[in-house]
Amino acid sequence: MEINLKENERIDDLEFKNLKIIQNKDGFCFGMDSVLLSDFAKEIKKNSSIADLGTGTGILAILLSGKTQDTQIVGVEIQKEVAEMANRSILLNNLKNRIQIICEDIKNLKAKYEQGSFDAIVTNPPYKKVGTGKINKKDKKIISRHEITANLEDFISISNYLLKDHGSIYMVHRPERIADIFVLLRKYKLEPKILRLIYPNVEKSPNLILIKAVKNAKPFLKVEKPLIVYTSEGNYTEEIFKIYNKI
Amino acid sequence: MEINLKENERIDDLEFKNLKIIQNKDGFCFGMDSVLLSDFAKEIKKNSSIADLGTGTGILAILLSGKTQDTQIVGVEIQKEVAEMANRSILLNNLKNRIQIICEDIKNLKAKYEQGSFDAIVTNPPYKKVGTGKINKKDKKIISRHEITANLEDFISISNYLLKDHGSIYMVHRPERIADIFVLLRKYKLEPKILRLIYPNVEKSPNLILIKAVKNAKPFLKVEKPLIVYTSEGNYTEEIFKIYNKI
Repeated sequence: MEINLKENERIDDLEFKNLKIIQNKDGFCFGMDSVLLSDFAKEIKKNSSIADLGTGTGILAILLSGKTQDTQIVGVEIQKEVAEMANRSILLNNLKNRIQIICEDIKNLKAKYEQGSFDAIVTNPPYKKVGTGKINKKDKKIISRHEITANLEDFISISNYLLKDHGSIYMVHRPERIADIFVLLRKYKLEPKILRLIYPNVEKSPNLILIKAVKNAKPFLKVEKPLIVYTSEGNYTEEIFKIYNKI
Repeated sequence: MEINLKENERIDDLEFKNLKIIQNKDGFCFGMDSVLLSDFAKEIKKNSSIADLGTGTGILAILLSGKTQDTQIVGVEIQKEVAEMANRSILLNNLKNRIQIICEDIKNLKAKYEQGSFDAIVTNPPYKKVGTGKINKKDKKIISRHEITANLEDFISISNYLLKDHGSIYMVHRPERIADIFVLLRKYKLEPKILRLIYPNVEKSPNLILIKAVKNAKPFLKVEKPLIVYTSEGNYTEEIFKIYNKI
């Protein structure tokens, strides 16, 4: 299919099932977090309905369409231009039958979906609280990085609404927010079941976390083996190599 | 000093500053968790007043007396026989001027101490909820292992009472309780500031966690580099070797 690119846009090959993504070089480009989250969430069952809250370029939805079987994915993005670009990526990949992009504030989803409409939620929300880190208001990435239009509680409370009983939410976030995340998950009856910490190497603090929580589940958190990105020689570890190879 | 041993008791050398401990071979004997917690808490400042909640044999208080300078430590133990044995270990080590053992239910400490009496709390509480794991009622270790006489909330709520403003609590626990711990710490205004996960090796799930929280502090959690116990060859890692060597 012929897809038009706008100024500053480029098409990147995801080197996985021939999938591609359109990105704006001045905008938020996908990183390892989306790749690791898509791999973490690949256990989502065949035919599940999935919502990707804050889908951005659509990267997570696109990767997940390749990692799961016959799932139906709705990607929700508040930024009109970004949602429109994500939509062109869906067309480019011939994924209209699997992925639907909607331009909407996640806080308005109650008006659009009935309670319990989804089997699973995936989300790579903005990591930074307003008031922390530098904010450049001209920055196109500001809404992707900072909790400007929706904060962690908004993401978690709407997830409780959207998920079926015993539905799962998969999230990638920063380690410094673990306490915030666990407190809010419990508040909205989403019980933390799996936590995995991602360490750049064995000598460094983790820089990302993967969390799975299940609606109305009993408490018992499984903390998984560490995900180490680089060996002491500075090469990708075998696990990262496998995750990327599979992509 | 001549100390009498009871039946089934033995004296173990801690190989650190000539410290020793009396343990009952049928009772709860100290493990790596106490050693790691004493090392984690060694930043406690000179002349601080410290409470060790659920001191058991007194191992944590004894190690901490060697790792900190001129601190005053109160070890609180509910089991009469165990507290009495801990007291003999204090005498054996000539530590009466540093450590006081009291036989008390931690839930009754409000009657004994004024609010804000301590600069720091250290605790290695029972890890298991009642109703999880096997319980053998004849087991002498039952109170040390299971939340029979006091649960996690009791330990955390009394810590809020005992700590000064901006005082610190240092805790060792199991990874599956992280969500419980963070939710309760926040509830009692003890803000999680440091989390460290202890992995048997890089291929395994963590089996212990170290947490520092500070009363009335601002939220920002630092998750530290992983503490790996064994190398892939099955030897202690350099860090563990150092922690044990220093003991």
